[in-house]
Amino acid sequence: MAVGLEGLSYLKPVNGIRLAAAAAGVCYQNRDDVVLIECCEGSSCAGVFTKNAFCAAPVVISRQHMQAASTRYLLINSGNANAGTGAQGMQAAQACCQSVADSADCQPEQVLPFSTGVIGEPLPVDRITAVIPDLVERLDEDSWNQVATAIMTTDTVAKGVSAQVISGEQSIQITGIAKGSGMIRPDMATMLAYIATDAEIEPALLQQCLQEAVAHSFNRITVDGDTSTNDACMLLASGKSGVTLTQGSDALADFQQTLNQLSATLAQMIIRDGEGATKFITIRVEQGNDTQECLDVAYTIAHSPLVKTALFASDPNWGRILAAVGRAGLDELVLDDIQIDLGDVRIVEQGGRAASYTEAQGQAVMSQDEITITVRLGRGQVSDCVWTTDFSYDYVKINAEYRT
Amino acid sequence: MAVGLEGLSYLKPVNGIRLAAAAAGVCYQNRDDVVLIECCEGSSCAGVFTKNAFCAAPVVISRQHMQAASTRYLLINSGNANAGTGAQGMQAAQACCQSVADSADCQPEQVLPFSTGVIGEPLPVDRITAVIPDLVERLDEDSWNQVATAIMTTDTVAKGVSAQVISGEQSIQITGIAKGSGMIRPDMATMLAYIATDAEIEPALLQQCLQEAVAHSFNRITVDGDTSTNDACMLLASGKSGVTLTQGSDALADFQQTLNQLSATLAQMIIRDGEGATKFITIRVEQGNDTQECLDVAYTIAHSPLVKTALFASDPNWGRILAAVGRAGLDELVLDDIQIDLGDVRIVEQGGRAASYTEAQGQAVMSQDEITITVRLGRGQVSDCVWTTDFSYDYVKINAEYRT
Repeated sequence: MAVGLEGLSYLKPVNGIRLAAAAAGVCYQNRDDVVLIECCEGSSCAGVFTKNAFCAAPVVISRQHMQAASTRYLLINSGNANAGTGAQGMQAAQACCQSVADSADCQPEQVLPFSTGVIGEPLPVDRITAVIPDLVERLDEDSWNQVATAIMTTDTVAKGVSAQVISGEQSIQITGIAKGSGMIRPDMATMLAYIATDAEIEPALLQQCLQEAVAHSFNRITVDGDTSTNDACMLLASGKSGVTLTQGSDALADFQQTLNQLSATLAQMIIRDGEGATKFITIRVEQGNDTQECLDVAYTIAHSPLVKTALFASDPNWGRILAAVGRAGLDELVLDDIQIDLGDVRIVEQGGRAASYTEAQGQAVMSQDEITITVRLGRGQVSDCVWTTDFSYDYVKINAEYRT
Repeated sequence: MAVGLEGLSYLKPVNGIRLAAAAAGVCYQNRDDVVLIECCEGSSCAGVFTKNAFCAAPVVISRQHMQAASTRYLLINSGNANAGTGAQGMQAAQACCQSVADSADCQPEQVLPFSTGVIGEPLPVDRITAVIPDLVERLDEDSWNQVATAIMTTDTVAKGVSAQVISGEQSIQITGIAKGSGMIRPDMATMLAYIATDAEIEPALLQQCLQEAVAHSFNRITVDGDTSTNDACMLLASGKSGVTLTQGSDALADFQQTLNQLSATLAQMIIRDGEGATKFITIRVEQGNDTQECLDVAYTIAHSPLVKTALFASDPNWGRILAAVGRAGLDELVLDDIQIDLGDVRIVEQGGRAASYTEAQGQAVMSQDEITITVRLGRGQVSDCVWTTDFSYDYVKINAEYRT
């Protein structure tokens, strides 16, 4: 029951990037759950990973392999996170990389492993490696939709988007996919996202582009405040378009803008499909002294179970929003300076309910599927924004039943 | 459906402290919702209040009045928090104090107001002041049980406890009551708690005793991480026992120990009756470098919706606990040093599932109503502990329907 999400549109191929998915029975039956993505020789690869202190084995190994060699393959499985699995988990991830290296004739360090799903279960290496020769065989540029579906766990819809950047007479293709629905409070990336372009761009510059895009997309969303052990967001650039992006060029600026927009769309798709979500909530904090205090207020509201259950109930219980602002830890916050709007309706000013406010107005906004809460702090010039979900019976149901 | 809580036991009178409750129709019908507590002339009064930046009007005024005069009366209403009510809310609280002063023949500054309930609704002053003469008339030392019931909001059981401190041939009586069930993450006190003793003790020393008691009781519990605008914990000392407690005395140490225990019992009662709670969870963090990092880990686990829904489902999904420890923000946390126990069962060691662990063992612990999660950080010598609830369908239901 994703909020305002249609089914997945057709995702356009990216020249130089081939993909395949297969059903290995990692955890689910009768569905694809292992994916291989290949980028052509000479591609650049950038990545950002979870800040959770307990990275899963595949995150540790992906980081090492990116340092050691030029990346050629990404191997992804859903249904098992290979996290909290100790030394055995590291061996399992390495065995998977070796298997790809054997089938695709490359170094194991050129393979990056990714896993998402239940934490603490041993990765079924044999079932994964059994499908790898077939995956290598079936690599195809036109498989993005199938792959977007194969990486899902508790997601109810597959998530992806394509965009084009026109650069003079040439064009650059960008296509990205993502998965994620719960344990979402990315602190560097989202659960898993893979974006590819046919632009030619140096690895260091590509990394910079990715970090900028992630900062205002995957790093501005939260479902439940829980940062995963397995988050990763990867950006591949094949160079096959013939368009070279260099520092300071107009073409790079255009690319960055489109990448930012595409990343924000993917990140918002994760929220629209957040576990149990019945609403898509934008929390905008304005007039702060700096970004950090805007985010402190926005995340305190976004994580408040009381605010989230009121949103689920379409109850304009603005006192809970006000209480959340008050406990966000900002020094010298002046209640009388705070304004809070629900949609276009002013609900709080001068320390209390706005004189013009009526419950009917608040109710009308809260009944909508997409709601913007705007908090003005009356302290400075900085604004920021996060996206989140409401908190429903289904959130409890999904997470109470996840392993059973 | 409070966890492990019997109905309220008989609460023993405290010499010099008189109480009364009445039904004013503040919000509820056909139940008591306004309380007056009187302490005799010469009593000491101590209090700790919410750290929410947006204190409710009664908190602001109680703080001012405690500075200005010696406290004689506490006036408490349930059903309306008088928070987010601006200048009008301040006037409303002051009018209530004036009404008590008129009826009881004291200064308005000798009256402290307390309110708990819905935020943002105007306080119905007339309905409250209408019952005050009757409350003054009916003040009685033997009304603790009735008063404990009158201050409830979403609480399902009244909460209170009595204790005695034997000091040589004399004895000191302590009786305390509390209310609170949701919006519980006290950051100085709980929702509302009133404790009285007949010991004689200087106000400054009494305040010190209260702060010590609160630190390891009301400041170690969380239901949902939401700090109320109205939290207050008050300690009254009438002096009528004839036992004087002075700094450094054995009698003071005995008193403090009993007060700590009584406060912890009251705080745990709030958690046992937490909104939607089906389990009582103790989270113990050991081997930390300092108290703050123990609490950071404990509260991150306690606030994780994924951990809380797994506890509700009796699912030993220890990966969620491990992920929460990992995102608690501790520097240089070493996964291999972490141990996690569920009850007496070791579930995590050396970065993964303990070799001896079986799902059946974990399941057996998780099926209990009272569960202790112990995390050993392997960094230092400091331990601390918080108490919390699980996260059930009923939590969502209660908070989605609270104002309707």
